[in-house]
Amino acid sequence: MDRANSLDRALRERARAVIPGGMYGHQSVGLLPDDYPQFFAKAEGAHIWDVDGNRYLDLMCAYGPNLFGYANPEIDAAYVRQLSLSDTLTGPTELMVRLAEELTAMVTHAAWAMFCKNGTDATSMALVTARAHTRRKTIIRARGAYHGAAPWCTPRPAGTIDTDRAHQLFCDYNDVASLEDAVARAGGDLAAIFAAPFKHDAFIDQAAPDPAYARRARELCDQTGALLIVDDVRAGLRMARDCSWSLLGIEPDLSTWGKCIANGHPISALLGSEKARTAAASIYVTGSFWFQAAPMAAALETLRLVRDTDYLERIMALGDRLAGGLVERAAAAGFGLRCSGPTQMPLYLFDDDPDLRKGFCFVSQMLARGVYMHPWHNMFLCAAMTATDIDQALEAAEGAFAVLKREAAGLAPVEKLAFLSAGQR
Amino acid sequence: MDRANSLDRALRERARAVIPGGMYGHQSVGLLPDDYPQFFAKAEGAHIWDVDGNRYLDLMCAYGPNLFGYANPEIDAAYVRQLSLSDTLTGPTELMVRLAEELTAMVTHAAWAMFCKNGTDATSMALVTARAHTRRKTIIRARGAYHGAAPWCTPRPAGTIDTDRAHQLFCDYNDVASLEDAVARAGGDLAAIFAAPFKHDAFIDQAAPDPAYARRARELCDQTGALLIVDDVRAGLRMARDCSWSLLGIEPDLSTWGKCIANGHPISALLGSEKARTAAASIYVTGSFWFQAAPMAAALETLRLVRDTDYLERIMALGDRLAGGLVERAAAAGFGLRCSGPTQMPLYLFDDDPDLRKGFCFVSQMLARGVYMHPWHNMFLCAAMTATDIDQALEAAEGAFAVLKREAAGLAPVEKLAFLSAGQR
Repeated sequence: MDRANSLDRALRERARAVIPGGMYGHQSVGLLPDDYPQFFAKAEGAHIWDVDGNRYLDLMCAYGPNLFGYANPEIDAAYVRQLSLSDTLTGPTELMVRLAEELTAMVTHAAWAMFCKNGTDATSMALVTARAHTRRKTIIRARGAYHGAAPWCTPRPAGTIDTDRAHQLFCDYNDVASLEDAVARAGGDLAAIFAAPFKHDAFIDQAAPDPAYARRARELCDQTGALLIVDDVRAGLRMARDCSWSLLGIEPDLSTWGKCIANGHPISALLGSEKARTAAASIYVTGSFWFQAAPMAAALETLRLVRDTDYLERIMALGDRLAGGLVERAAAAGFGLRCSGPTQMPLYLFDDDPDLRKGFCFVSQMLARGVYMHPWHNMFLCAAMTATDIDQALEAAEGAFAVLKREAAGLAPVEKLAFLSAGQR
Repeated sequence: MDRANSLDRALRERARAVIPGGMYGHQSVGLLPDDYPQFFAKAEGAHIWDVDGNRYLDLMCAYGPNLFGYANPEIDAAYVRQLSLSDTLTGPTELMVRLAEELTAMVTHAAWAMFCKNGTDATSMALVTARAHTRRKTIIRARGAYHGAAPWCTPRPAGTIDTDRAHQLFCDYNDVASLEDAVARAGGDLAAIFAAPFKHDAFIDQAAPDPAYARRARELCDQTGALLIVDDVRAGLRMARDCSWSLLGIEPDLSTWGKCIANGHPISALLGSEKARTAAASIYVTGSFWFQAAPMAAALETLRLVRDTDYLERIMALGDRLAGGLVERAAAAGFGLRCSGPTQMPLYLFDDDPDLRKGFCFVSQMLARGVYMHPWHNMFLCAAMTATDIDQALEAAEGAFAVLKREAAGLAPVEKLAFLSAGQR
């Protein structure tokens, strides 16, 4: 089962010379098993090929952007068609207005939209809008929740300074008392409460939002005049054809979107309710490529597929099929495997596996069998996947669990994740 | 000369319903003459068409990104070709390494590259890298200089708070004494000095960098261990086939790039010297679309054109032709017109025109004659422009100056720019 990796190794060598650390950001394989490829060559539908020509069923979906399949012919055709007309030019096109109209028609709480490029742009704009609206400073967010990689929120502090995170208070996700305590600590200065639609922190079990927590967040914002922000960058369109907290009957004042709203083409968005409109109009935010027309054309085509297909029901059914099959096969091999999070955005963790050595062994074995899984970040299913793909993954899992069973007792510690068992996170 | 604008008006109405203020950011026409179109339909070469079908020679070039012509066939073909192979996927492609290799080969001071989406991403990463490298906090930048639109640097403060700009000191561009004073005030805490390659502030005359200022900035960084950052997002590739301050013989530690490096496709970059590599590898920055392959393919093709064509010499010659012709025709009509900045990125201001009423009248008349100019932001020439285009613009200018001459005495104040005469900026 030895996969070729010489081209990947050679590219890493070249990369080390001209890219700090060889690679950076969420797609660095620095904290993945050593046999994971860093560089890819091709993507189509639900599959990716690394630079050595190995093909994988991709359960990461580009960390979210791939919702309707890589190189989706309809969406990419819309992009290319618009590119020949206009893309980045001296002003926006009608597509910007149409996209704002369609998003506000689709997302219940939203009366307006602003477009940007990064998910972090959207969450940062939400922060600034809330402070402009309330003329207050303090925000509350959940400990360990990811809301982007700007100095105010990046998960690794190197190069950031104390003032970057001034006026921030932390609570524990789903813990109403800790939220109430943070609101009390904010005194009269609360500008916003940030909330992920579900708890999707790395390295630990995911958690569905407790409806009581979501309701209380809404109430506390209403009582204090602060804005409720649902950060749907990661989960948007994979939970609902609306803001993800619409499933709980909770409407935020602001929601942030990105990742898959144009199926991998670069665009993100801040949506807001009527209440926040004046504040949003008062802030100065912009970017060289924010008014690009081609990603907007792709987003419109993506939204058409969202409306007109059963993609959501299908990825949920595929997620259930994968979860049921994996947990069952793990049990048959004698392992406790926990699926947490929505099954279409699942995280799989083994019982009794503090430094993820079982997880690392398992995903490496899956990789060797043509299935790209992540050992500690939630994964993503897409509408290009089929039941056959899932069944092939389950067949691969039988082989992977068998190897794990054979090797479990002798697995070496995962040194690069030693910080997990040290409880340093 | 009445241009149709009913479709633009109708779109603005629709936009007001679903976009805060109807439009935001640098491409809002809020501070332009009332007859300027907000929405466009098409772009090709050096020309743009508004939604009402009016065609303009576009002297804004998308505020910079258009360097080799809109819808450049070679660059867009590279984009589309790559799109069919892979774009946003679960990791980078070889193109990322190649692009880093080519940029570091081209830019003298650079040993490494990191890619991102917005110019603001690059400047923010430079800030964080400098603080990580020095383990200090204070940065110095020039009063009124634009380095992006994040809370630490956005030119309009709504929604930002005092701590967003903590540990920043200001100097006056080209004023060595004010720079030395700021360095002295920083005490032992200086992390970085930011510098625009030339003074390209809005609303006022641009200025070439004083070599003594650039040299002193370099010396002060060397003496204190701080990093020198040249923000080449706006001017990069339009001054030199290298960092713009290479023209002065000054090598920064970090330089930021964006706008035109992929001719309008969305990518920006931070380049750095060997000294800053370890710090750059230590920071956590990322974005959903930062490792997109298609914009990297477009950037590689753009760099090929940068290397293999005389685009730079041509846009400089065209800039000189435009400047000479405009200033001469203005004088013939009895007006003092100042061209400041490099002629390929010029700003034109009239003498004795504190609220820009002459400027507004003139650019409106140019617009009516099919030439899109900006009254208070530097403009951009591109390699798709020809001497014939410039000559047509000069012919239009004769008509525009004639109207201005007739109407100058009776021009109404420009109320939307009243803040300029009030000296509030």
